[in-house]
Amino acid sequence: MSGRIGVGMIGYKFMGKAHSNAWRQVGPFFDAPLKPDLKVVCGRDGEKTARMAERWGWERAVTDWRKVIEAPDVTIVDICSPNDTHREIAVAALEAGKIVACEKPLARDGREAEAMAAAARKSGRLNTVWFNYRRVPAVAFARQLIAEGRIGKVFHFRALYLQDWTLDASVPLLWRMDRETAGSGVTGDLLSHIVDLSNFLMDQDMASVSAASRIFINERERPEGGRAKVEIEDACVFLCRYSGGALGHFEATRFANGRKNGNTFEINGELGSLYFNLEDMTRLWYFDSREAKHVQGWREIPVWEECHPYMKNWWVPGCAIGYEHTFTNQAADLLAAIDGDTAMRPDFDDGLRCQRVLDAVLESAGTGKWVDVNLNTGEREA
Amino acid sequence: MSGRIGVGMIGYKFMGKAHSNAWRQVGPFFDAPLKPDLKVVCGRDGEKTARMAERWGWERAVTDWRKVIEAPDVTIVDICSPNDTHREIAVAALEAGKIVACEKPLARDGREAEAMAAAARKSGRLNTVWFNYRRVPAVAFARQLIAEGRIGKVFHFRALYLQDWTLDASVPLLWRMDRETAGSGVTGDLLSHIVDLSNFLMDQDMASVSAASRIFINERERPEGGRAKVEIEDACVFLCRYSGGALGHFEATRFANGRKNGNTFEINGELGSLYFNLEDMTRLWYFDSREAKHVQGWREIPVWEECHPYMKNWWVPGCAIGYEHTFTNQAADLLAAIDGDTAMRPDFDDGLRCQRVLDAVLESAGTGKWVDVNLNTGEREA
Amino acid sequence: MSGRIGVGMIGYKFMGKAHSNAWRQVGPFFDAPLKPDLKVVCGRDGEKTARMAERWGWERAVTDWRKVIEAPDVTIVDICSPNDTHREIAVAALEAGKIVACEKPLARDGREAEAMAAAARKSGRLNTVWFNYRRVPAVAFARQLIAEGRIGKVFHFRALYLQDWTLDASVPLLWRMDRETAGSGVTGDLLSHIVDLSNFLMDQDMASVSAASRIFINERERPEGGRAKVEIEDACVFLCRYSGGALGHFEATRFANGRKNGNTFEINGELGSLYFNLEDMTRLWYFDSREAKHVQGWREIPVWEECHPYMKNWWVPGCAIGYEHTFTNQAADLLAAIDGDTAMRPDFDDGLRCQRVLDAVLESAGTGKWVDVNLNTGEREA
Amino acid sequence: MSGRIGVGMIGYKFMGKAHSNAWRQVGPFFDAPLKPDLKVVCGRDGEKTARMAERWGWERAVTDWRKVIEAPDVTIVDICSPNDTHREIAVAALEAGKIVACEKPLARDGREAEAMAAAARKSGRLNTVWFNYRRVPAVAFARQLIAEGRIGKVFHFRALYLQDWTLDASVPLLWRMDRETAGSGVTGDLLSHIVDLSNFLMDQDMASVSAASRIFINERERPEGGRAKVEIEDACVFLCRYSGGALGHFEATRFANGRKNGNTFEINGELGSLYFNLEDMTRLWYFDSREAKHVQGWREIPVWEECHPYMKNWWVPGCAIGYEHTFTNQAADLLAAIDGDTAMRPDFDDGLRCQRVLDAVLESAGTGKWVDVNLNTGEREA
Repeated sequence: MSGRIGVGMIGYKFMGKAHSNAWRQVGPFFDAPLKPDLKVVCGRDGEKTARMAERWGWERAVTDWRKVIEAPDVTIVDICSPNDTHREIAVAALEAGKIVACEKPLARDGREAEAMAAAARKSGRLNTVWFNYRRVPAVAFARQLIAEGRIGKVFHFRALYLQDWTLDASVPLLWRMDRETAGSGVTGDLLSHIVDLSNFLMDQDMASVSAASRIFINERERPEGGRAKVEIEDACVFLCRYSGGALGHFEATRFANGRKNGNTFEINGELGSLYFNLEDMTRLWYFDSREAKHVQGWREIPVWEECHPYMKNWWVPGCAIGYEHTFTNQAADLLAAIDGDTAMRPDFDDGLRCQRVLDAVLESAGTGKWVDVNLNTGEREA
Repeated sequence: MSGRIGVGMIGYKFMGKAHSNAWRQVGPFFDAPLKPDLKVVCGRDGEKTARMAERWGWERAVTDWRKVIEAPDVTIVDICSPNDTHREIAVAALEAGKIVACEKPLARDGREAEAMAAAARKSGRLNTVWFNYRRVPAVAFARQLIAEGRIGKVFHFRALYLQDWTLDASVPLLWRMDRETAGSGVTGDLLSHIVDLSNFLMDQDMASVSAASRIFINERERPEGGRAKVEIEDACVFLCRYSGGALGHFEATRFANGRKNGNTFEINGELGSLYFNLEDMTRLWYFDSREAKHVQGWREIPVWEECHPYMKNWWVPGCAIGYEHTFTNQAADLLAAIDGDTAMRPDFDDGLRCQRVLDAVLESAGTGKWVDVNLNTGEREA
Repeated sequence: MSGRIGVGMIGYKFMGKAHSNAWRQVGPFFDAPLKPDLKVVCGRDGEKTARMAERWGWERAVTDWRKVIEAPDVTIVDICSPNDTHREIAVAALEAGKIVACEKPLARDGREAEAMAAAARKSGRLNTVWFNYRRVPAVAFARQLIAEGRIGKVFHFRALYLQDWTLDASVPLLWRMDRETAGSGVTGDLLSHIVDLSNFLMDQDMASVSAASRIFINERERPEGGRAKVEIEDACVFLCRYSGGALGHFEATRFANGRKNGNTFEINGELGSLYFNLEDMTRLWYFDSREAKHVQGWREIPVWEECHPYMKNWWVPGCAIGYEHTFTNQAADLLAAIDGDTAMRPDFDDGLRCQRVLDAVLESAGTGKWVDVNLNTGEREA
Repeated sequence: MSGRIGVGMIGYKFMGKAHSNAWRQVGPFFDAPLKPDLKVVCGRDGEKTARMAERWGWERAVTDWRKVIEAPDVTIVDICSPNDTHREIAVAALEAGKIVACEKPLARDGREAEAMAAAARKSGRLNTVWFNYRRVPAVAFARQLIAEGRIGKVFHFRALYLQDWTLDASVPLLWRMDRETAGSGVTGDLLSHIVDLSNFLMDQDMASVSAASRIFINERERPEGGRAKVEIEDACVFLCRYSGGALGHFEATRFANGRKNGNTFEINGELGSLYFNLEDMTRLWYFDSREAKHVQGWREIPVWEECHPYMKNWWVPGCAIGYEHTFTNQAADLLAAIDGDTAMRPDFDDGLRCQRVLDAVLESAGTGKWVDVNLNTGEREA
């Protein structure tokens, strides 16, 4: 299959901008024969959505998401509306035979994610979750180095996701801080990313977790006025025992003053180690203990050579890409998978696996007990 | 003025890709009322140019640059063909009343640049040189800090532009290494950038220079076959005396193994210092000696806050932008200048000032003597 | 009091070298009127101890530690023998009226530490534990910045102590890996340091912990031949709830390939943050969110100015000190405390508080439950 | 030869402290059979010198340097008095058959240095200049990597020595700023170090130089009162052509705000590159372009392993040493050379070679012309 493919997007704010850019950029930058057409964007506010459509090149704007799903010229349904809308839209889209790309976290909890993963499996259509950090070239490259056997048996995985934007008590209770809409706080928003990176990078499963969480500011203004109790966690930390014996620890917070997008991970293995920091996303740090002792050291690898993942599509060595390109890379991979009829990851089963870990984390934070993680998805049970 | 404005681009390879992207992206990302239409792209190879046009959304492709200049739907002529073509095209475009945006270096030498700057002044049309690194947010921010008086009287400016891509003797003699086409080697290609940054950042003029240059590999294959003598410099270093007493040194090379785009500068003033490295372009380092002694230190400022130059048009704090955005920022500023009928910098006079320094550098490298720099352009003499 | 004071040291290997150096160097480098005389060193191997004494300037060598305690010319007893000897020697020395300086960890467990702290309180003599990292100038400076109110209410404390020297399965089962001698593995050896730093830096107590530990290599050669089961933990991680609501996490391991002395901590507060890494011990990183938004950034403060803790005794700005100086700084503080009849910290009660946390950590690692920390020492209960 | 060797030191201030420490520490830390006795220290102020002697363990203090040279128990004469005293003392000491260790720069100019090098050659006694940065383990290690052939043919050497302590106009005109006493400003004080490092590391000679210098503050208070014109340069930069075709540039200044001891060098060769920064002296950065392309990167090698130069004498991996140890390392090498009757470098001929470069630099800064460097010493001419 090649030629053009129609995309319909539901949601039009920050993530709508990131996704629109991806659909616009993937054509010229990637060689894939399949090119997307930006057919329709959907948002609840008709006027704003229409302006967004004009600005970003969507052919038309609608306010009812069902119109997107019913549109015969739409093959890919891209969901970037708030978490509480994911399940209903995704299931309907899959049932309508659409290919679905859903923002992370897949859902508000494992129960919702289960329904979505089941619908995906039943539909037989390609589906993906926008865990875009898998497509940071340095992260994809980390996986490549692991696959090359450069790290060996892993002893430790530690990952942080540190932000500070809700430190200020005057920040209102946006939807990301609303339990009904978001499902959880930093757990769904930030831990989801680093749990997915563990699932992506580690060849050991997360087996059990012990967690603690905190709400540091108990009450905030609602954007629409009035004060409300904050019910979602500002910070969440957990320990993890892996199936192969490794020890992990994870932390996400919006109260780490001075850290803006401090998504870092370090993997320590018997042959080497890797370190990544999203705030310096061009680099991967690599330590190789097989080298001659006197020249051993952490190597700062700028991941911008043609031989690095995705980079031959962009510029030349020395020219960094940034945040937005991770979405474009994922869009390119999805189009290539559609074109080549191959698998696409992360899929809804990956989203479900992540959600199972998050559910265990939240349960542990509530009960104070270690909680086993059930990573079996329907697919595996079958 | 608002609405749409037609762009015609001459040149379609690496820089053509960077410029095309800028014209495509400036619309959705910037609020400026004036939006560009990608009307026509021109290249010597008709078939390749046509493919490029289709891929990047140019309405039509031509092989004769005069067609671009004659096109009534083209208001901005964007020149990104090799250096030896700049003068003829730019002068013709200006005489045709076009707004001209020309890739750097403005010309192969000061004589050519003089003719171009004179034509620009005579035309009264806006004109600019793509010294895109002025629009790295961290660099524009450096200028802002200087304007805020945070550095004070400057004692030292030191700038490097280190690359390594011609270290390999098997790299053929591309046009950038051909004297007739490029005019010079690293002087026009790399020193031009850091000389322009000095002109952009320093409130002192470069008064005189002492230089040395080297050709490390004397002969290379021609892309079309056969060996040729390399006549342009692989490396060029120079000292600079500034009009206000500061001392500068500058180095450009393509033989710094491990440095890919190592464009760095440091400014030391009586109140503070600044440091920038293009390989880590998101950051500006700032030292403030007015702070309490015990907390003085170099501060790594990630230039991604809404309050930083250009950044409110992109994503949110913590989300880096990259190489390509510098061009988009410049396109946005040009459109805003056209729209608002305000000045645009760097203009051809800036390009000429840079070229005057480069001429002095090359003369000094040849004679072994200090050479005074003549920074007077016609504009100033008037 | 001023003049000379006699020191007797028990233990003569790695830590004996570090302590000997401290006693030798404190005289010339510090202005304190009280100067130490290196009277006697004690070790089990008479010949090696005698050579050590000659090399380092100890007046005499003995093989029975009781001789040190009975020596009338010894006022300070410095204990740097293995953990299992600490309690008996320290209690005897205190009962003999000596001032005691004991290597960390204070003891193998809280019960031993309790006996030692009780003996210290009863004796009324000065006593200290060599938690030398409190005297890294950058760490002491961190405490100063906190005391200046620059961080404000703390939300997060996270500390790692990463090493890799036992990764190699051929490393024999040295005393630090022997349960009987060491008491525990990385918990007593490494976690003790970062728990003490938390106690030193945080104005919140550690209230409860949830831990996990691992033995990665189950059997090793004994130095004296034969294989033995490894009974102490190679890695230990724990979460911590602080009394004031902060969340902490701590990790110590000897299996972090590429990390040699990776003792790091980060403190996030409402006004700012601090970061320290022992592998780059000259620096303290400081983020101040009260500054103007556009110039906010992590500041790398080289802690080598005269105004920084301890530094006026060493060289001049720009000249780094290293590992050994932390011991000299502590020796200087102890001599000054003796001279001025003032308090000395960390004392045995601090050692006991640390041990109480470690006991809770090991209990939690064993039971899988959150364990409350009892930080009451006898002193507080009185 | 083994046993004890007497040292007499002339000068007792900052460098006297550094040298005293070296002579005290070399005994216990190094295995060399020859141990120094601190016999006599000489200073112009009798009382201060006596206090210094007591504090640092010198057996006696004198005020006339001739007493040191005449002392039969003194074998090594260590000169750390101001530059204007070096020649007279060193020549006399050599003529008296002493081994001489002289602070850098060897002399105020090449003429003085020539006399000293001639006296050294004539005496046949070991002699050395305290270019202590050759003995930073990371610097010695850089030389080792070069000797291992890891860099290959060198294209570029660039070195900075940046300080900021005279930026403040209220800093008085100390002896280091007095032409009569110091000979020159940053040229003798700072450029000497980096010129010596070039001589140490490069297998190409410095052939010719083009320099510029500046006095930024023209008048200062004398310590003894009254104002005086500043006659020595605050900053000096120069370009260098090497005998083998490499290009160098060098800069020294005391006006680089925020740089305290910013002695950095980078060497770019055909096979790799090295980078060092004295402000982070534990590390050497190494880029190896022979590795697989995708894992190429600058490697931060912490030079603290037993296999690294000097490090087996100090602590264990992960434990940094600092500024003072460079002197101790040099003292150890001198004692080993005496003991083993082997050569010692840098010797007075190295000091002379450095001075020849500095003379050429100052001449060039004065005349504005490229000046050839005469590196022939008497030794080579013989």
